This record gives sequence, C-alpha cells and structure tokens, in this order.
Amino acid sequence: MEKYDIAIIGAGPGGISAAITSKLRGKSVIIFGSRGGGKLEKTHLIQNYPGFPNVSGKDLADALYKHLEAMDISLTEAKVSMIYPMGKSFSIQAGETIYEASTCIISTGVVAGKPLPGEDELLGRGVSYCATCDAPLYKGKTAVVIGYNQKEESEASYLNEVAESVIYIPVYKEDVNLSKDIRIINENPLSISENNGKRVVETDGGSYECDGVFVLRDSISPGKLLPGLETLEAHIVVDRNMATNIPGCFACGDITGTPYQYIKAAGEGNIAALSAVAYLAKA
Amino acid sequence: MEKYDIAIIGAGPGGISAAITSKLRGKSVIIFGSRGGGKLEKTHLIQNYPGFPNVSGKDLADALYKHLEAMDISLTEAKVSMIYPMGKSFSIQAGETIYEASTCIISTGVVAGKPLPGEDELLGRGVSYCATCDAPLYKGKTAVVIGYNQKEESEASYLNEVAESVIYIPVYKEDVNLSKDIRIINENPLSISENNGKRVVETDGGSYECDGVFVLRDSISPGKLLPGLETLEAHIVVDRNMATNIPGCFACGDITGTPYQYIKAAGEGNIAALSAVAYLAKA
Repeated sequence: MEKYDIAIIGAGPGGISAAITSKLRGKSVIIFGSRGGGKLEKTHLIQNYPGFPNVSGKDLADALYKHLEAMDISLTEAKVSMIYPMGKSFSIQAGETIYEASTCIISTGVVAGKPLPGEDELLGRGVSYCATCDAPLYKGKTAVVIGYNQKEESEASYLNEVAESVIYIPVYKEDVNLSKDIRIINENPLSISENNGKRVVETDGGSYECDGVFVLRDSISPGKLLPGLETLEAHIVVDRNMATNIPGCFACGDITGTPYQYIKAAGEGNIAALSAVAYLAKA
Repeated sequence: MEKYDIAIIGAGPGGISAAITSKLRGKSVIIFGSRGGGKLEKTHLIQNYPGFPNVSGKDLADALYKHLEAMDISLTEAKVSMIYPMGKSFSIQAGETIYEASTCIISTGVVAGKPLPGEDELLGRGVSYCATCDAPLYKGKTAVVIGYNQKEESEASYLNEVAESVIYIPVYKEDVNLSKDIRIINENPLSISENNGKRVVETDGGSYECDGVFVLRDSISPGKLLPGLETLEAHIVVDRNMATNIPGCFACGDITGTPYQYIKAAGEGNIAALSAVAYLAKA
C-alpha cells in the first residue's frame, strides 16, 4: 500500500496551497482532485485574489495548476469516498484503491444542498456514494444513478457494464451523453425510500424501483466522509490552526465556513499544511 | 476631519488584501503604509504564494501594489502612532493628522524585539514613539532618537529643526545620512532611565542625557497602539472572523500569530475586511 505523509482531499485553491507548502517542507504528498470540475474554473471574474487583478476563474486556475506542476505535484483523479482513522494513520478509499497517510487535509469545498429525504437513513443499505467501489455488488441487479455533475456519467457507464439495468437521473443542465441502454430520466429527484426489499426513487415525474441508488455529488458531506468528524451544519469545525477534532486531520477552504473566498482558502491551506507538518514532527 | 468606513493600518499582503476586498464591497478605505520598507520586499524568494511559483519578494510586492493601483487605492504614508476607540468609531493619529474611521483593521506585522528596559515605564513621560507628533514639545530641548530603520532619519531631521540638539542612534546596518549638526552614536542602546528630571539612554559604549527619547521602530506593539486590545505575547488575540476583543477592530497577518506566511496574511486580510463589512451593516 502506498503511504504518504500528507493526503489532501480536494484540489481547489485551499488544497493546492496545502500541497505546495507540504511539499516545500519536504513531505510526501498525495492530492486528490481533478481539473475542470471545480467552482473556480467556472467563475467568470475574480477581483480579490491579491496579485491577480480582474482575473477569470479559468486563468487563476491555470496559474495555480502551473504552480503545482512547477513543483512536480500531480493530481490523483480518483474520487475519495471514505476516510478511516486508523489510530496513527488514515486509510483513504479512492475509487477501488486504498491509500494510507499519516495526516489528512480535507479541502473538498462545501457540499451544495441537503441530502434527499431517506438518503441518510438508507446509506449503506441500498444507497451508495461510489459506483466504482460498489458496482461489483450490483451484478444482475438494477440501479438508479442520481448524478450532480457531467463527470458522473462515466460512473453510470461503468455500473452499466455490471448491473442488469441502470436508470440515470442528471441533476445538471448540460447534455447527457450515455449509451442507449441506459435509461435517462430528466426529472428532479425528491426522495429515496424502501419498499418490500426494494429501493424507490421518487421524482417530480414518477417513481422508480431498483435494488440500489447511487447519489453522486461533487463531494460527500464531511461527516460521512470521515465518521466522527465534528461538524456544524455544512462545515467542519476547526481551530485557528485548521485542526479538526480528530488528531492528524486538518481542513481548509469553504468546508471550514464562510467567507467562501479563494484567497481565504489559499491562506488556510498554508496553515493546514504547516499544522500537519508540526503534527508529523511530534508523532 | 476625514472619515472612512474602514481604516487599515499596515500595507503588507494582509493589509493590501483587506483594502482590495473592502473597496470591492463599496466601502471607503484608507490604508496606512509605505512601499519599500516592509519585510516582503526584502525577501529573496517566495515559493508558496499560490499562483506565483518562485517569485522574489520585490516582484510579488509589485504585483500586489499593481492590484491596489488597478483598484484606485493609494497608500497613505503617514505612520500611525495611536488608535483611540471613541465608542462608535476610531480616531487614528498618523503623523500630525487625525483620521476617523468606523472600523479598523490592524495589519502591522509583528514587532521584532522586546521594549528596552525602562521604555514602557517612561512612555508618555519623556519617551515617545512619534517625532512628528511630539516635536513641538521639544523646542529648545535635547533629544535622543533611537531609529530601527533608515526611514526614521527623516524623523530625526524634522526633530532637529525644532529641538536644541539631537543625538541619533541607528539600530541598523545601512549608512546613516543626516546633517552634521545631528550627533550620530554607533552604539547599541541598552536601557532608558530617569535621573533628576532628565532621561538617560545607556548604551554599550556610554550614557546620554536628554529631555526626551524617541524610540522609532517599524511598528508599535499592538497593545500600545490601541489601549485595551487583548494581546498574547507579541500577537493580537483574534477569533476565526479576525475580530479582536474591541468591537469594530479586526486584525490580520503576522500580528495575529504564526505561521508568518504571506498567503496566510492575504487570506486573513480578506476575512478581516468581510467581517468589518458585516460589522458596518449591523452598526
């Protein structure tokens, strides 16, 4: 198993800043995230990231990724579905791989929207956040995939190779591009429930029965990502050192609370990295 | 008297970030500081301000000042010697002028070094931090100026126009360039004391009697700048919103504690500005 000093979950300005400072301090780093999907790159104009007057989100993202490249840091694109605290380290499930790290920094951004009614109750009992991880369980079975981002279409395709049949409900405006044997339902999901051993997804246009429901958001709410993590509404509770209630776990950026600002995230990423470095020195 | 929504004391990355965001939010802003004297511009290489890989302090400072200029914000070069909380606003003494602001953000950086023995005790009784402010009191009297930065030479010159005689003790390595009627003592100051109504500056090379002593550092320790401000060692105590214990007063950057990092300061400046904006909305 690969083992790192510092694992960073999320590659917005907070995560990138944390990765840069971690590596400068001589630590081995893995940073999970992908280009193009984040809030930054979709932002039209940013005026208060000091040093970049009137910059587009895309141009600022380019500058940040160039900085990462200059430091020989590359993104690990697998999506993190779970972090398990193992006492002296963390096991991080990303796609089908488990990574190990002595410390972790959560910088996933805020999760938009509340869970669907029934989602929390059925999580792990027919509701999953990771098609790549759980697809093998759906051999010969039926699944509904609720995708909040175009990127999730590849997860639906993968699931469709294994499952008996897949229904895809896109919760975004872009065109859907999937093979014809996946049924696409352009309706808004309203709830998930259980009925005679089956799961039922209710939408504003109908009701869809299946064996399992995959809810694929841009990120997973922090309390579900790392059980036991202290949260307050949608945010992780941190102190001024960006430390969470779990030793060795730090957080930065929007997920730690307002203001949702890129320069605030970058500043916090720096602090989180240096706190992780200090933690490693003591451990 | 000029009145502003937000007064920012200090023009490093924290103060600049605060100024940019304050102005973007439609607030009237004054920022006190000057180019060239700060820590940033003297820094050889900065590798972890995301977006600027391997940048010199001078080049990063240029980018930050260009951002200020692009937003039509100019620096007010007068040095702030005192902030008086006036209930609903703050009076800010800078040189001979008093400015008024509804909120203030302190971003002066950390003050290096401890006060000289006797300095705290005699402050306001023959020890001053501002030659421009107190020079008129020294007509026909003698003064010792302890300057921690080449910029203070102009303060000594100004004092010399008024006072009977001036002794200048430079606490820096650069050449001193002063008129010949100012006596320059290249010794290290050790203490300030009182003797028969006179002040005495002891150095490692001698003892100098005078009517008043001017101790001119790059910045004044925060507890002296704003009486009643809660501090812990050299730092101002702030919460996650960058609020101090005094309503309407915020702080950012090195003065709020470690890590002393430029991107941390810039992030905190953004938070401090938005907290000041929120405070103004409620006031």
